[in-house]
Amino acid sequence: MKTFFDCIACFVRQSLDSVRMTTPDEAIHEQLLREVLRTLGEMDMHLSPPAMAQRIHRLIRKMTGRDDPYRSVKDRFNRLALDVYPELEARVERSANPLETAVRLTIAGNVIDMGVNSQLTDEQVHEAIDHALNATFEANLAAFGEATSNAGDILYLADNAGEIVFDRLLIEQLSPGKVTVAVKGSPIINDATIEDAEATGLTELVKVVDNGSDAPGTILDDCSDAFRRRFDEADLVIAKGQGNYETLSEVGRDIFFILKAKCPVIARDLDCAVGSLVLRRSGAKETIEGDSHTTR
Amino acid sequence: MKTFFDCIACFVRQSLDSVRMTTPDEAIHEQLLREVLRTLGEMDMHLSPPAMAQRIHRLIRKMTGRDDPYRSVKDRFNRLALDVYPELEARVERSANPLETAVRLTIAGNVIDMGVNSQLTDEQVHEAIDHALNATFEANLAAFGEATSNAGDILYLADNAGEIVFDRLLIEQLSPGKVTVAVKGSPIINDATIEDAEATGLTELVKVVDNGSDAPGTILDDCSDAFRRRFDEADLVIAKGQGNYETLSEVGRDIFFILKAKCPVIARDLDCAVGSLVLRRSGAKETIEGDSHTTR
Repeated sequence: MKTFFDCIACFVRQSLDSVRMTTPDEAIHEQLLREVLRTLGEMDMHLSPPAMAQRIHRLIRKMTGRDDPYRSVKDRFNRLALDVYPELEARVERSANPLETAVRLTIAGNVIDMGVNSQLTDEQVHEAIDHALNATFEANLAAFGEATSNAGDILYLADNAGEIVFDRLLIEQLSPGKVTVAVKGSPIINDATIEDAEATGLTELVKVVDNGSDAPGTILDDCSDAFRRRFDEADLVIAKGQGNYETLSEVGRDIFFILKAKCPVIARDLDCAVGSLVLRRSGAKETIEGDSHTTR
Repeated sequence: MKTFFDCIACFVRQSLDSVRMTTPDEAIHEQLLREVLRTLGEMDMHLSPPAMAQRIHRLIRKMTGRDDPYRSVKDRFNRLALDVYPELEARVERSANPLETAVRLTIAGNVIDMGVNSQLTDEQVHEAIDHALNATFEANLAAFGEATSNAGDILYLADNAGEIVFDRLLIEQLSPGKVTVAVKGSPIINDATIEDAEATGLTELVKVVDNGSDAPGTILDDCSDAFRRRFDEADLVIAKGQGNYETLSEVGRDIFFILKAKCPVIARDLDCAVGSLVLRRSGAKETIEGDSHTTR
């Protein structure tokens, strides 16, 4: 997905949010803002939003000298997710449709996205869980269930720290033995890296690889050769979150995108309401979307 | 009030909203966005937000060749306000406190602000009226009533088209004979100009002057000599809306600001919640604010 004009104001807001999280020095905030405005003024609008965000966050890391400004936020949401995990796992187990419940909950975890909401509270995560469990979700999950059953080798592209704990609920349903989880190659916003996979115990359950990139999505040209081979060879790819949708929606291979549509631009591209729970197959007609209007 | 870093993203959004209202040509949207980003990247952050908006809207008018892109929107909200005026006038007349009711309603009219919400619907105007009438408004209007009674010559700085019809409710309470209304010197966003004052019959009720400027606020250095003299000589100034607050909040003279706090930056500067009804005296301690949380 290309960058829409509407994304530009959002980049400016996100840059300010990010640099404020990194340093209280207003001179650096101003310097960063001016540099971002200059960069955006010259950007190639055919780039995807994550390609643009990658540049902005490289700038922030360079200006502040901090390699991983979101480390403490990532730790916080990993802990929060681990705290609620046992209860969510029990919910999946006693559900009449464990696969559907697991998909709903993994979408709930997708609210842990500091690029969209840098002020996310614990309460909002709990609200997202309630919403995902109760929203109308006209899910004929048959296609997803069949494709995942038939695949011998599933590549699961993780999105954010904290969220990867929610992903585990779905991975357990897919049988972990055939799943490889890919995380980011180095820190970018609050996207999960190998450190998060280890801290949350995911590396004990499944094989975890990194994609070699610091983009908040999956820009294949920016990923390592090893990752790209794995991406090409997997029977099926599951891609979590907006960033992966934005970078892979036009890639010619079988992908299931699982996300919460958190911004108007994505929602328009997916032809759904903001807040919708989305499970969509790349290039395919099967679209299974929840209605965001039932609980909030 | 200076421009805060948070205003920058809002300028980008506002620029896109404005240019889209003006032309469907996406090449012009992109050209404008790039020019705005370049301008913002080099801007003097000590300028007020209206000074920045003035530059942006000059760019839009130049690029599109349209001198008054909001003309039809202004006509629409003038008509809407004239349609509801008789009912609002009756409400003020039968109110136990006509001055308070008139102030509340003139604040309701302040939602007609295309800089903040270019998609404003008729329904939202009606909601704003209900809100303004019902919100907690711990108004000790004594100071305002006393100051306006004592003043022989009141300069009323109008804000937007449509809104000026609501202002009439308050002007009637102040006794029109001693009020001069100032509108903008030429079109800027949907700010009222002499054309709106004429179209809505305001010129039949009071003396109306223009301030000689195309800024969406009152930048004194940018106004005509005649206006500045009037501003200096008036016994009392009433300034409507965010733009007038942003440009006059630090000017050393007696001013009553009347507005709805529509954005987080203004609300923080005024130390109130977003959505609050605000009547504040320049430099004075008397602050009379409504609570935005009662009806929505």
